[in-house]
Amino acid sequence: MLPRLAKSSLIQQVRGVSAIANAEPSGPSISTSIPGPKSKALKQEMDKVHQTTSVRFHVDYEKSFGNYVVDADGNALLDVYTQISSLPLGYNHPDLVKVASQPHLITSLVSRPALGSFPRTDFADGISHALTSIAPKGLKAVQTMLCGTSANENAIKTAFIWYQAQRRGGLGPDALHLESCMNQQKPGTPNLSVMGFEGAFHGRSLCMLSVTRSKPIHKVDIPAFDWPIAKFPRYKYPLDQNVAYNKKQDQECLADVEAKISEWKRRDNDVAAIIVEPIQAEGGDHYGSPAFFQGLRDITSKHGIVFIVDEVQTGGGATGDIWAHDHWNLSSPPDMVTFSKKLLTGGYFYGEHLRVKEAYRIYNTWMGDPTKLLLLEKAVEVIKRDGLIEQSREVGAEFQKRLGELQASSGGKLDQARGRGTFAAVDFPSGSLRDKFVDLAISNGLHCGGCGDRSLRFRPSLVYTKKHLDLTFDLLDKTLKGL
Amino acid sequence: MLPRLAKSSLIQQVRGVSAIANAEPSGPSISTSIPGPKSKALKQEMDKVHQTTSVRFHVDYEKSFGNYVVDADGNALLDVYTQISSLPLGYNHPDLVKVASQPHLITSLVSRPALGSFPRTDFADGISHALTSIAPKGLKAVQTMLCGTSANENAIKTAFIWYQAQRRGGLGPDALHLESCMNQQKPGTPNLSVMGFEGAFHGRSLCMLSVTRSKPIHKVDIPAFDWPIAKFPRYKYPLDQNVAYNKKQDQECLADVEAKISEWKRRDNDVAAIIVEPIQAEGGDHYGSPAFFQGLRDITSKHGIVFIVDEVQTGGGATGDIWAHDHWNLSSPPDMVTFSKKLLTGGYFYGEHLRVKEAYRIYNTWMGDPTKLLLLEKAVEVIKRDGLIEQSREVGAEFQKRLGELQASSGGKLDQARGRGTFAAVDFPSGSLRDKFVDLAISNGLHCGGCGDRSLRFRPSLVYTKKHLDLTFDLLDKTLKGL
Repeated sequence: MLPRLAKSSLIQQVRGVSAIANAEPSGPSISTSIPGPKSKALKQEMDKVHQTTSVRFHVDYEKSFGNYVVDADGNALLDVYTQISSLPLGYNHPDLVKVASQPHLITSLVSRPALGSFPRTDFADGISHALTSIAPKGLKAVQTMLCGTSANENAIKTAFIWYQAQRRGGLGPDALHLESCMNQQKPGTPNLSVMGFEGAFHGRSLCMLSVTRSKPIHKVDIPAFDWPIAKFPRYKYPLDQNVAYNKKQDQECLADVEAKISEWKRRDNDVAAIIVEPIQAEGGDHYGSPAFFQGLRDITSKHGIVFIVDEVQTGGGATGDIWAHDHWNLSSPPDMVTFSKKLLTGGYFYGEHLRVKEAYRIYNTWMGDPTKLLLLEKAVEVIKRDGLIEQSREVGAEFQKRLGELQASSGGKLDQARGRGTFAAVDFPSGSLRDKFVDLAISNGLHCGGCGDRSLRFRPSLVYTKKHLDLTFDLLDKTLKGL
Repeated sequence: MLPRLAKSSLIQQVRGVSAIANAEPSGPSISTSIPGPKSKALKQEMDKVHQTTSVRFHVDYEKSFGNYVVDADGNALLDVYTQISSLPLGYNHPDLVKVASQPHLITSLVSRPALGSFPRTDFADGISHALTSIAPKGLKAVQTMLCGTSANENAIKTAFIWYQAQRRGGLGPDALHLESCMNQQKPGTPNLSVMGFEGAFHGRSLCMLSVTRSKPIHKVDIPAFDWPIAKFPRYKYPLDQNVAYNKKQDQECLADVEAKISEWKRRDNDVAAIIVEPIQAEGGDHYGSPAFFQGLRDITSKHGIVFIVDEVQTGGGATGDIWAHDHWNLSSPPDMVTFSKKLLTGGYFYGEHLRVKEAYRIYNTWMGDPTKLLLLEKAVEVIKRDGLIEQSREVGAEFQKRLGELQASSGGKLDQARGRGTFAAVDFPSGSLRDKFVDLAISNGLHCGGCGDRSLRFRPSLVYTKKHLDLTFDLLDKTLKGL
């Protein structure tokens, strides 16, 4: 392995006094409505050249720090939404800012490799530190991609390639397959399907939308593959008071999975893979039990179906484990685990049996982005050094307790408080009341967000501590009273 | 608009003496076989954690500069392949290295926005300088995405959304559409298709593979949408000696387009969009004439079909125009133009009629990467300042002339020399001979690459000058003689 070029401490020193914020405020400070006049003016400018329909407010990223996002008007909000759960260490973490000064990051940025063909000399080293060191149990091989959607797309392609190879007795494509695929005829272009679940979200490409059932606005007007969708458990909370009901949910859903595998087989459209989130996040924070997922593992093993766990939103530590599926105690590991968001780079881990033997089948120009891998390498180091997963577990336990208490005192406005670690949600009676609550919370200095039809979700980063928790619940309480 | 934070000249000064190369060698220097012993050792390391089937050699990106790529073993090659045509200004361009020092780039890197909801204060400014300033005639609105594939996917989604709105008299989705799409039933999930062309390459997601016909290994074992593929012209060269033959190609291909539009309409699977490359690059550098593309524009206008030009490989100036479709002189602009690679960020320009009115329909967490936009802003400034498109046109004219002469003197080894600007190709009698030539050229210090079944392609960056051209043809001549 070649040595890394030394960091220049002079660069860091200069950077340290630059215009990037380097400390958290002691609390939120709000001086305008949100969006304020500057955010509104920027949105008008932006609308001339780019869609703005989903823009909430513009952010001053130079002034944001830690758990606090600062908007264009100088309002500082405690952020428990963190760019849709995609910041592992909050804003402008000093260790990441330092990495940004290093020559190997700069060259990664300005001389971007086609890494499937011409990787950087430090690529394997980066993969080992950033990803192999946090690999899910049983899955050492990894492939980087640019985002969660491309991770899922390529995981599914890998599953199809494996499934077809199994049909050929383990062999690669023969002349007949290679010829027929150019006309999209069998056997080269097979009928194969992927099973998703009601409420699932796996991305917005046409393939991923075919297994996504989060919201109509995500899917309407877009053609889709005719792939099976099975039921996903809908538990009642608290769990310990609804054991029988919830167990029946698991059984019904697993029976539905089995039935649809058979149905699609009869329709000559075999299920090659099942893709599932540990917690259906965009769809409304719906949880599955370890027993449910163990059932899925057993069914997929029995039928020779690739079992893909989509940890794009759950991976990275906020659930109190680096992977949300860690606590399932499966009899054997999932075949693939996909990731993105908090892990900065997209990608997937896979079992060695799925490694594609032929070149250029899982391939594209960039196959990820080495700048993200270098940042992740440092982020993982910080997460381990500072015990941030343990912190999420501890602060998360307190979060769950407090959320339950808030619900109990809400006079029926809140329901179904649930979560793992700091990854948490609670339901409102309606979507409109939830939306009103989010707006009011933002104006009170707490940046939270919705998911599903009427859920409020919490997605703080890993630098969220007890002090931020206390402030969060003060602001939630205040907002609830003002609703 | 808020002012950008000032650059620190001290940072730049420090950076200038760092370990990043800042000058080109006078010519190639080769001291080992390629891949050499260090590249081979790195590949072995990499293979433990990541697929390596397509890896040619490892690159020392800190030592690479301008038109020269330096491999792990210290070999310096003149690079006319440039990371599969994705470097606009070669390696480690000093102006881009400077941008990497700026606080707004660093915060973009370490505090990445969910830019559809919380954009940076300088986002509209960056869009205007980086993209609007080079917008294709008639298309001012733009959407950034992460890569060429996601650009094409979202362009196609936009086309579907528009096509369905037209069917509803310009209206958004109603309750029936919203409800039915969750079960993937009509009318919410329509039967709609996209037309591609024989030899096309638009990316490797399942949707894009359905309109891709580059090579069997890209498509085999992957399920696909049943979408129409029309014939694409296959011209004979030189063009001025094959006018009648080539004109007939255009006519036959356009008739095929018309016939397949009708056929898919009869099958209740309307063609909502046609996607086409100006030059089919991965498929083997196949060109269409201005008359062919004018015919496509006329047909799509007549049928109310969205006309998408995929400039992922051609966009950015190497053809002697910023957009390869600039010289078609269409009666009206394309409806959409997609881009990536040399433009550093993915994305697409679109006509205002295609702007999606409802929020969260064209959306995802990141929707691009602001670091790439900031780099592109500087790259566009350099391209204009240094007259690099004009340079590509001039050097390109000489390149075409010399390639024709090389072919004439090749004793039948080369055929079909063709190109625009420095974007050029030539054919070998077989794929195996082409592959042998590429290997030998690399060992002689010229990094070129293949495309299609038996073509050699040239993809220098925009900093390629007459001096590099002379060296290129010396090396081509030497390699051809050694073949």
